[in-house]
Amino acid sequence: MDIKTIEWKNNSIKIIDQTKLPAKLEYLYIRDLKALWNAIKELKVRGAPALGAAAALGIYLGIKDYKAKNLAGFNKELQKISRYIASSRPTARNLFWGLERMKNVAVKNQDKPVSAIKAMLFKEAQKVIKEDMLACRLMAGYGAKLIKNKDTILTICNAGILATIDYGTALGIIYKAKEEGKRLKVYASETRPLLQGARLTAWELKKNNIDVTLICDNMAATLMQQGKIDKVIAGADRIAANGDAANKIGTYNLAVLSSYHKVPFYIAAPASTFDLKIKSGRDIPIEERKAQEVTELFFKSPISAKGIKVFNPAFDVTPHNLITAIITDKGIIRPPYITNIAKQLKKNK
Amino acid sequence: MDIKTIEWKNNSIKIIDQTKLPAKLEYLYIRDLKALWNAIKELKVRGAPALGAAAALGIYLGIKDYKAKNLAGFNKELQKISRYIASSRPTARNLFWGLERMKNVAVKNQDKPVSAIKAMLFKEAQKVIKEDMLACRLMAGYGAKLIKNKDTILTICNAGILATIDYGTALGIIYKAKEEGKRLKVYASETRPLLQGARLTAWELKKNNIDVTLICDNMAATLMQQGKIDKVIAGADRIAANGDAANKIGTYNLAVLSSYHKVPFYIAAPASTFDLKIKSGRDIPIEERKAQEVTELFFKSPISAKGIKVFNPAFDVTPHNLITAIITDKGIIRPPYITNIAKQLKKNK
Repeated sequence: MDIKTIEWKNNSIKIIDQTKLPAKLEYLYIRDLKALWNAIKELKVRGAPALGAAAALGIYLGIKDYKAKNLAGFNKELQKISRYIASSRPTARNLFWGLERMKNVAVKNQDKPVSAIKAMLFKEAQKVIKEDMLACRLMAGYGAKLIKNKDTILTICNAGILATIDYGTALGIIYKAKEEGKRLKVYASETRPLLQGARLTAWELKKNNIDVTLICDNMAATLMQQGKIDKVIAGADRIAANGDAANKIGTYNLAVLSSYHKVPFYIAAPASTFDLKIKSGRDIPIEERKAQEVTELFFKSPISAKGIKVFNPAFDVTPHNLITAIITDKGIIRPPYITNIAKQLKKNK
Repeated sequence: MDIKTIEWKNNSIKIIDQTKLPAKLEYLYIRDLKALWNAIKELKVRGAPALGAAAALGIYLGIKDYKAKNLAGFNKELQKISRYIASSRPTARNLFWGLERMKNVAVKNQDKPVSAIKAMLFKEAQKVIKEDMLACRLMAGYGAKLIKNKDTILTICNAGILATIDYGTALGIIYKAKEEGKRLKVYASETRPLLQGARLTAWELKKNNIDVTLICDNMAATLMQQGKIDKVIAGADRIAANGDAANKIGTYNLAVLSSYHKVPFYIAAPASTFDLKIKSGRDIPIEERKAQEVTELFFKSPISAKGIKVFNPAFDVTPHNLITAIITDKGIIRPPYITNIAKQLKKNK
């Protein structure tokens, strides 16, 4: 499938509007920061690695036409833009990583004229995109080694093409295993409330001729009880130094089920998803989103009593002891995570 | 709340059309068997105990105007009606129990004229209804003893007023505990695909002034991880002789999560839900329903790619070793179930 989830095009950020899928594949050209902020908040663009790219491109989008009187003014504006983008969603580490990458470029080039810094920021954003494309392929190469012929894999949310630039983390591994000639079967958990599994993962796997079956989130346990799942692979939004991994709500549920049924549970994420300053999952900020996502079935029709209280965390944290291995672009990391994550990420820098 | 889920009225079966909730509380008068069959199949009336009543009333509805030439013809027609009702849904034991109760009345009164048998069948159906109302209250009395002040209870699907005649099994226990002055908090799992938790349980608990919060099914794990759930109480559709319990899909998931987080997991069901001829959960027939329930959000709008494969079992089986206790109208049954179920159900007959 030759599509790009996010790229720089026509002097704007071009994204697939993922809220329109699977009904139509529609592109959106984002020309100002407010539109970008809304696109992120409303999940028109989503997925941790894609958010890293959105953040990097966003910095350039915000600063490119800024008429700086002096370097101090330029730096101040850059900080303002970064803070604004950072306020869109709190959990995915890659978003902040993307912003930091961009700010670092400015910091390191304070001796250059503003126009040159702008050009370097553009280059850095393009580098973030190229690196994601490479990271996904490296991750897929490592991860595919874990997949056996005829494996049945369960995944949640969307950690595919639509969560990255063009290949995917968890789904990238599945694509790669298929390219290697392995026959696979995938179950996609629909992922309430916003149904990224039903809308996005089922769509992209089907488009790529992967044998996919859609289930509701509460059906995974039954599949495991019946011995139908060989492996679970999920993405991640932020991984702490000890290996605790925040990912889409429902991931922790699958990790507990995997542990109970002795099914290997893998997290697939690039190095940019790790947040080594955070010691454990307890310190990962978890976004809580609005009640209507739960009560109104993707904003279309009410399904519950008016005014009903709702608990709607967008993510949960899977403690490291439930994770069989973390598949990264720097290789496969296994327990003990507290030493191996730092070692592995450093080794390959 | 003074409503009846199902009753005999105006020479017909009067039910709440549960597919219309929570938008409107609408009653439906069922005047022929085909309409009853469809109402059961389409979940206009649902919940194992309510299906027991529907089956009993259905036999009378089907036979009441039948002009029998002789007793043999009458008996044959009764069998035909019973087989037809039985073909509507396969899992809930109470449906078959209701049919058997009615057929037994006919069998035991073969010496009487057909008109008298018809009258006795009507009486038996009314008895089934009265017994359910009593059973729910007995169950609630036993179950409420397990509930502490300030408990937070998680439930799934709807095991309330709308699943019985007028009080509920799992929710009956909650109503009773509240009547006893206990302060409770309830989380209702929305229960995909047909959202009985969101549509029915949240509605009836709110109507009855119970502090209820709605969650998506994949959020229960997070609540337990955070120590927010004191007990899980679910209903059941069929319980085998060894205590394995079939209930709405997602129940087994909650049982595994409860075990992992050391949260007591209770099943609440009347004696009529037990099927002692079935040795274990493996032999309980599990209804698989159509894909559109998953792909079209309660038949309103498509959420997944066209033609996507779906796995849609309506129930799962929780093995007895994950069940802390079974709350019945004959008292609370605890492990070892293989001996205690038979003992307890017999003792109080």
